[in-house]
Amino acid sequence: MTGVEHGYAVILAGGYGERFWPASTAKRPKQLLSLLGDRTMLEMAIDRLAGLIPPERVIVLTSEDLVAPTIALSPDLPRQNVIGEPMRRDTAAAVALACAVVSARDPEAVFCVLTADHVMGDLERFRNTLRSGMALAESESVLVTIGITPTEPSSAFGYVETGESLDLAEEIVGDIAFRHVTRFVEKPDRETAEGYLDSGKFSWNSGMFIWSVEALAKAFRIHQPELADLIAALVPVVDTDQFAQTLAAQFDPLEKISIDYALMEKADNIVMAEGTFAWDDVGSWPAVGEHLPADEAGNVAIGDVVALDAANNIVLSEGRLTALIGVQDLIVVHAGDATLICPKDKAQDVKKVVTTLRDNPDWSRFL
Amino acid sequence: MTGVEHGYAVILAGGYGERFWPASTAKRPKQLLSLLGDRTMLEMAIDRLAGLIPPERVIVLTSEDLVAPTIALSPDLPRQNVIGEPMRRDTAAAVALACAVVSARDPEAVFCVLTADHVMGDLERFRNTLRSGMALAESESVLVTIGITPTEPSSAFGYVETGESLDLAEEIVGDIAFRHVTRFVEKPDRETAEGYLDSGKFSWNSGMFIWSVEALAKAFRIHQPELADLIAALVPVVDTDQFAQTLAAQFDPLEKISIDYALMEKADNIVMAEGTFAWDDVGSWPAVGEHLPADEAGNVAIGDVVALDAANNIVLSEGRLTALIGVQDLIVVHAGDATLICPKDKAQDVKKVVTTLRDNPDWSRFL
Repeated sequence: MTGVEHGYAVILAGGYGERFWPASTAKRPKQLLSLLGDRTMLEMAIDRLAGLIPPERVIVLTSEDLVAPTIALSPDLPRQNVIGEPMRRDTAAAVALACAVVSARDPEAVFCVLTADHVMGDLERFRNTLRSGMALAESESVLVTIGITPTEPSSAFGYVETGESLDLAEEIVGDIAFRHVTRFVEKPDRETAEGYLDSGKFSWNSGMFIWSVEALAKAFRIHQPELADLIAALVPVVDTDQFAQTLAAQFDPLEKISIDYALMEKADNIVMAEGTFAWDDVGSWPAVGEHLPADEAGNVAIGDVVALDAANNIVLSEGRLTALIGVQDLIVVHAGDATLICPKDKAQDVKKVVTTLRDNPDWSRFL
Repeated sequence: MTGVEHGYAVILAGGYGERFWPASTAKRPKQLLSLLGDRTMLEMAIDRLAGLIPPERVIVLTSEDLVAPTIALSPDLPRQNVIGEPMRRDTAAAVALACAVVSARDPEAVFCVLTADHVMGDLERFRNTLRSGMALAESESVLVTIGITPTEPSSAFGYVETGESLDLAEEIVGDIAFRHVTRFVEKPDRETAEGYLDSGKFSWNSGMFIWSVEALAKAFRIHQPELADLIAALVPVVDTDQFAQTLAAQFDPLEKISIDYALMEKADNIVMAEGTFAWDDVGSWPAVGEHLPADEAGNVAIGDVVALDAANNIVLSEGRLTALIGVQDLIVVHAGDATLICPKDKAQDVKKVVTTLRDNPDWSRFL
């Protein structure tokens, strides 16, 4: 594995991970938790780039109040690579901000956009995909999205519909296939997703992208001129003491819009890299459970757990002992002074607990 | 309310309360927990005797290793009134031991046998029942059992079948009715219990008794001579420094047998006092839930609890916040570093958790 000379990685790590309460809190959200091992989700995202992009060229975007804990919990990362967003303006603005930072450090850079809440297997294949995408983005003015070859008709992801394969030189892209993109579609119902799989034309929209700073800035100029203006305003002040003030002034008036809506569904130079590595979005507790080992009754247990007549539960019991009798398909999470008990199929409602806690000043200490 | 001159109360408080794990532990079992308010179950049992029997005449029997915590957690009780059983020999031996202690302190005594795991209402009526029973036991050589007039065909209690009413002087027994006992029956199934209720002849066997030390010793002499020998051996050493050694030597060879089997099912001088006060045996977590206030969804919550779409749960969450989403009929108990999660209808299996923990040395700290 060789590195990419002008290659940068931008990791979007700004969420509050409300669906991972009580483990995820305002001061230590999901990306700073070790949900799947000894390393935080963010460290795992950085580790996955080993040999391809060194930590010095990994930029992490997070919210301003999470800059300090992110630095503290990511010792491998240079402090100046953790950039705080002064307010939440969705992914299009975040990507433009990242583009400015990367561009100021290396005007010839290509960078990939990754997130800290993915879990992956076949990491060599993942890195090959990134390397090929970067090589393509260096040689042609295209915007690359990584689509994952689906293994099931999931209704949890958006999809990318593709047309013809690109005819590309093997010395540039190796054995990674690239296709023209026809359209992006939102999360389908199960039946529609089955049709997608049967057609062979659809991939999961992973939310990972690759582009040169030049091609990206050009695309913003055409489709989102205010974000092109943001980049132009920021590049001269990156790594100076005027950066924070300029950023706050420029960021505040921006529209909240995702990179998918802002650019990917509008630009005509989008291509998709076929991602054939194992990939999942760790969006809620059941997804965590799927990536941890289970006992013969299907129980996933971290910490001391006694399960009598209990099956298919996910129990995070670090520092405590949890005894389950006769329950199925429950999520049980102890963290700090709080405990969540919830059936797997209600895991989306964990956000409602967070809302309830916010509404009660007595309970703010549990957030 | 006037007291009973020669009246003593003996409270059996020797169990380990395994069905109340994790709140109940080896060092602090059920009777020393404040499950139903600010006072421990044992203190509540002593409090109920207010005006009838002062703490100086309340004797508590417990296991030897629980004497120190029982004294520490029952400040109203004289230390010398907490008697430790050197080994578990069931209720017949415990009652005989109590008989010796009471007899040594007052050879003319009458005493009631109570336990620390009952919950009661109509306490004035309860005390009237005790007072009348003691008055009867002072005037006649009978063994009194207190039967509770059933409010439902419970299959959780044994029953007492009765015959004719006793014709007793009102100046002795007041307005409390006493009946001849025909037989004692074990916990019936629901259908049998319904028949019992329809017949009007059956009461719940409360496990509460009243007798004079003289009548009891005489009954033991007839039906359990080894327990009569125990009494005879202990009376001379009660409140001396030879007591513990004599007790250990005498207690060890005794058969494990309940007072029901040993005496009540054999003696012919048994009468039943009709207990018309509210009474329940707090034998497991669901019973605790029934005696605590519930919200409109039927959830009983102690401590900080968020219940979304959750109904009929019992949650003891002191010192923690517990969030429940979409679960029904669960028992959730946090205590120390352990948590129990169990459907109400599996509450009996909590004992199996205790057994599992005993089998694993790493988990002994949770017992």
